[in-house]
Amino acid sequence: MDPNTLKQRVGQAALDYIQPDSILGVGTGSTVNKLIEALGQAAIPLRGAVSSSEATSALLRKIGVAVLAAEEVDGLDVYIDGADEIDASGCMIKGGGAALTREKIVADLARQFVCIADISKQVEVLGSFPLPVEVIPMAAAQLARRFAAMGAQARLRRQADGQPLRTDNGQHILDVTGLHIDEPLRLELEISAWPGVVTVGIFARNKASVCLLGGPDGVATLHFS
Amino acid sequence: MDPNTLKQRVGQAALDYIQPDSILGVGTGSTVNKLIEALGQAAIPLRGAVSSSEATSALLRKIGVAVLAAEEVDGLDVYIDGADEIDASGCMIKGGGAALTREKIVADLARQFVCIADISKQVEVLGSFPLPVEVIPMAAAQLARRFAAMGAQARLRRQADGQPLRTDNGQHILDVTGLHIDEPLRLELEISAWPGVVTVGIFARNKASVCLLGGPDGVATLHFS
Repeated sequence: MDPNTLKQRVGQAALDYIQPDSILGVGTGSTVNKLIEALGQAAIPLRGAVSSSEATSALLRKIGVAVLAAEEVDGLDVYIDGADEIDASGCMIKGGGAALTREKIVADLARQFVCIADISKQVEVLGSFPLPVEVIPMAAAQLARRFAAMGAQARLRRQADGQPLRTDNGQHILDVTGLHIDEPLRLELEISAWPGVVTVGIFARNKASVCLLGGPDGVATLHFS
Repeated sequence: MDPNTLKQRVGQAALDYIQPDSILGVGTGSTVNKLIEALGQAAIPLRGAVSSSEATSALLRKIGVAVLAAEEVDGLDVYIDGADEIDASGCMIKGGGAALTREKIVADLARQFVCIADISKQVEVLGSFPLPVEVIPMAAAQLARRFAAMGAQARLRRQADGQPLRTDNGQHILDVTGLHIDEPLRLELEISAWPGVVTVGIFARNKASVCLLGGPDGVATLHFS
């Protein structure tokens, strides 16, 4: 099955998790775009959606879904988003697109995280994908030393022009390689407490409840407890 | 003893913790200002200082101390700063001045935190002083709900003109009342992991090593292990 068809199938399968007349949390990425397309065709009525990016908000408005600010809702049934890596317990690495803080905030509003991904994102142990960590710029060097002390290497993410990338929150991103994350929740809690860390891209506290995983044989549904 | 004389005594006593030719971490506040005054008079030679505020940096430059950025040093022997509350184990609440993130980042560079305070800051259990928490604005409502679920009340800090206060990092501050913080380290780690929290004003991971406490009988020195 070609990748595009597979993404369509995964996006279609995710519709099963959307309750009519609910407020939906929607992430960002090419598979999410297929979900939004399928949502427009299925015409499931929604009270609105909270989105993790401007790109997603624009697509949602195009299919007639009202986009609400996170501050306007006091909870969501479901947040649907992709991941850079997902392990066998539903823990994820996210933040390749630099929106990890907004994604974690919206995910935290939701009772269920539905991860939509292709099989290449499934890993035994998180950490091959460089872990994104959003940091206060003045703490970056100290935080890089902390990672080095764990045997990992932190690299400041830069834009095409060589300048440090600035997130939506005006902060920097470290991409950390050389981690073998066999206890994602423990590491998430530890790194979150390091002074100057805004958000770590480990989603263990807010892990997936379900993963719709596209593979050569179609879409597999994984449930996590 | 009048408060001013007492602050002078505490500032003077803090000089004992400053190694000649070291790089010193310096916080902010009226007692810190007395320390800087005493430092100028004692003329202890320093390689420089890392400061937690522009106000402190200006005073340091005035007495001829070179001010370095946090990024320029790979560690400090000592960070000297005040606190809004300090308990019997050296754990503190800080952030009344909204600089908690910068203060925690500089404190984290230092091997020793020397707290300088007057006896009114000493408490049995932290939490009478409203706990400052720096947050990403879009998460403020969700975080306020989390505090409410603990029986506490979070209030957005505002400027004199009624607008939400913006920190140096462009974020907001919640002031949280109704907490009884009998396990500061546990609560610091928990709140730090809540999505949208930049820094919580509990300093337990970076607690005081020593507190120089000014009281009616002079300056008492408390050591914490």
